[in-house]
Amino acid sequence: MINGKPHIVVVGGGFGGVSICKLLAKENVEVTLVDRHNYHLFQPLLYQVSTAVLSTDEIAYPIRSFFRDNKNVNFFMAKAKGVDQARNVLKTNHGEIHYDYLVLAAGATTNFFGMKEVENNAYGMKTIQEALAIRNHVLHEFERADKPYRTPEERREKLTFVIVGGGPTGVEEAGAIAELRDILKAEFHHLDFNDVQIKLIEATAHVLPMMSQDLQDETVRVLRKKGVDVMLETQVVGYDGKILKLKSGVEIPTSTVIWAAGVKAADFIKDCGGEYARDGRIWVEENLMVKGAVNQNVFAIGDCAGFMHGDMKRPLPTVAPVANQQAKTCYENIMKLIKGDTNLNKFVYKDLGAMATIGKAEAVVNKPKMTGFLAWCAWLFIHLLRLAGAYANFTVAVKWAWNFLFGVRLGRIITNIKLDSGKLTIPKVEEDHSAPGVNEGNTVVLQSEK
Amino acid sequence: MINGKPHIVVVGGGFGGVSICKLLAKENVEVTLVDRHNYHLFQPLLYQVSTAVLSTDEIAYPIRSFFRDNKNVNFFMAKAKGVDQARNVLKTNHGEIHYDYLVLAAGATTNFFGMKEVENNAYGMKTIQEALAIRNHVLHEFERADKPYRTPEERREKLTFVIVGGGPTGVEEAGAIAELRDILKAEFHHLDFNDVQIKLIEATAHVLPMMSQDLQDETVRVLRKKGVDVMLETQVVGYDGKILKLKSGVEIPTSTVIWAAGVKAADFIKDCGGEYARDGRIWVEENLMVKGAVNQNVFAIGDCAGFMHGDMKRPLPTVAPVANQQAKTCYENIMKLIKGDTNLNKFVYKDLGAMATIGKAEAVVNKPKMTGFLAWCAWLFIHLLRLAGAYANFTVAVKWAWNFLFGVRLGRIITNIKLDSGKLTIPKVEEDHSAPGVNEGNTVVLQSEK
Repeated sequence: MINGKPHIVVVGGGFGGVSICKLLAKENVEVTLVDRHNYHLFQPLLYQVSTAVLSTDEIAYPIRSFFRDNKNVNFFMAKAKGVDQARNVLKTNHGEIHYDYLVLAAGATTNFFGMKEVENNAYGMKTIQEALAIRNHVLHEFERADKPYRTPEERREKLTFVIVGGGPTGVEEAGAIAELRDILKAEFHHLDFNDVQIKLIEATAHVLPMMSQDLQDETVRVLRKKGVDVMLETQVVGYDGKILKLKSGVEIPTSTVIWAAGVKAADFIKDCGGEYARDGRIWVEENLMVKGAVNQNVFAIGDCAGFMHGDMKRPLPTVAPVANQQAKTCYENIMKLIKGDTNLNKFVYKDLGAMATIGKAEAVVNKPKMTGFLAWCAWLFIHLLRLAGAYANFTVAVKWAWNFLFGVRLGRIITNIKLDSGKLTIPKVEEDHSAPGVNEGNTVVLQSEK
Repeated sequence: MINGKPHIVVVGGGFGGVSICKLLAKENVEVTLVDRHNYHLFQPLLYQVSTAVLSTDEIAYPIRSFFRDNKNVNFFMAKAKGVDQARNVLKTNHGEIHYDYLVLAAGATTNFFGMKEVENNAYGMKTIQEALAIRNHVLHEFERADKPYRTPEERREKLTFVIVGGGPTGVEEAGAIAELRDILKAEFHHLDFNDVQIKLIEATAHVLPMMSQDLQDETVRVLRKKGVDVMLETQVVGYDGKILKLKSGVEIPTSTVIWAAGVKAADFIKDCGGEYARDGRIWVEENLMVKGAVNQNVFAIGDCAGFMHGDMKRPLPTVAPVANQQAKTCYENIMKLIKGDTNLNKFVYKDLGAMATIGKAEAVVNKPKMTGFLAWCAWLFIHLLRLAGAYANFTVAVKWAWNFLFGVRLGRIITNIKLDSGKLTIPKVEEDHSAPGVNEGNTVVLQSEK
């Protein structure tokens, strides 16, 4: 209790966490929202940051701004470490926080399925930092490939971009890189763009598993038309930073592997005293309470919660609508408990459909079924609507229009940044992009110099 | 010669470098623009990135985009290392480049005047990386100060922001941080903002040396009205990351020192075989040729060039209009030499005046003399006009309007990024903002918890 009011602690400022805090803000309770970042990330548009369409600030919102007028919602920037359910405390790297009710909404992280080598050398696609790293790296590879002393093999390795995972993230990333290639083509006057290869690798026989067969086929057709090499039923077994190894024995020389092949619950979830699915998600009852909750006051929602009841064959998907809908049910149930009512609501998921863009002017939508330009417009509209903050909607709309009309992408700046314990270390650009084979005395022959 | 055409190499993609390349692009010459970054930076607005008003992408433009339609302008991403004038080669970390004519437009870097301790612990204000580091750090200090276990001394140290240097950068940064403080005040429900101190330290008796006494006085008056502690005739002698030491013996506990007290020429300029001023600038003749140029084909323009002729008491200031005007004269002189005409033009600087904003709705302009809201509007207008790219003008205008009308700053996201040799290392957030004094077993008392 704080000031005589029930204290609800929410871990995670994603879709689920922010939604439930907005609902709780109107009640006579005290809320503490804990997140290791000070911003809410609009993850569905992360791929646009990684491909230089949007700026970070346009898809990341200061969490405090949501609760400017809600004095009963307090933000606590810290990394959650675990839960001691017996003592009703959340452990963080800034100490422990007592709760009367706890909501775990910590989200998901990239799942490399135990392949350490891949984890060390491939890029994940879940955080702002990763998206910026991909942007820097991809743009830098074009610059590195454009050096006259490169061998054809080096050039091809640098210009081969592999995306692993045929879900919406992988499909959208592949389409966006294909589009970026076309934009860069106009600006590299001496680089042979026949060397650019974009490969989308999927282990199963289908991309976009939530879509029907005809939409899946259409997606593959559009990707191939845009020059993406779609490789279905292809499994990755290793990547050392230079050679991507497939189960078939085939080896692909590439310096860029983007891993969008799976997610698992945030790591600390395993230290919350519950029962866990194979992907680390904590199992929840139909009322969203964590299974076996000691004091009947711990809930989990969104990507970190494993919800599987009735005749479901697998847990609910890790998408924003699930988190938002669960936030509402969880809020209702906490308010019931506060009022002494233990007859809690059961969560029922309402599937709103799925959509994915495939580069410029192409998309697929399954409810109602749409493809092509119309689906793309629907995608733009829905995402603009959902983006938090009136202001960002507006500049994002402007950027998209500019991008569509003039093929302009202004985010194409390479900003290698290295921060050491809060202070800046200027990145050693020399080390970073120096030519290993070039000695001081060598002369770079620019074009047909005489 | 490349393809039988004279080869002009330009070092630096700042105002001077891009300007001269645009002029040369129309001639029958081959141009190579060398820069260690792939973008042109609009430095006058860097302080707005550091204070979360604008995004990096809005003040940094891909250099290649400027020369999309100019096949004779080639971009070469590399770090310049020096010049061997006898052999007509520019040395870079990617090998050597032969030139027929060389233009040094490498700009300036922060001058810590040999104070190593200050250099290691204070933030410079010359690069995108530094601006982002300042943004991350300042926002993070508010979060760190907002932890309930802080002592009053720790809290004050974290909320004391010192800017050193009373030139336009220092004045604008101080004003912008004061404005940021007011925005954050609405969102930190439990932080006492009386602890926030913003100090602007200037060694001489005047801020904005290029302005008249009445404009200087007005600037100090406005800054003080906005809660900035302006300390004139105050010299910094040391900073260890915790205590800023003044020559007077006074010590200021602070974890943030932003150094805007001086610039010097880019380091590699000293290896170009010329004669140098004390701040590292290479001396140039009236025609902008480097003094003592061995083959009469090396020029220098902008911040890295030391131009002092006639009755001038000190070299021209390090501002964009000097670089742009010198680019034009330098271009004319190179074209004369190519045509065999050795009667080169002399550079004459036309002073267009100076301006500086002081936070929201306040500015000073010296030509024609203006202050207050009118000067602020003039400042906005001029900077929008000068920002490269129609698109960015538009979103920047939108952002400024939003900021003015609603006090919104959406760039307030903390993105500690650490890139190791091109690959991403997820920053160790735990180490970064953990509480040194908090043990796992301690309980953080949130507000008046019972």
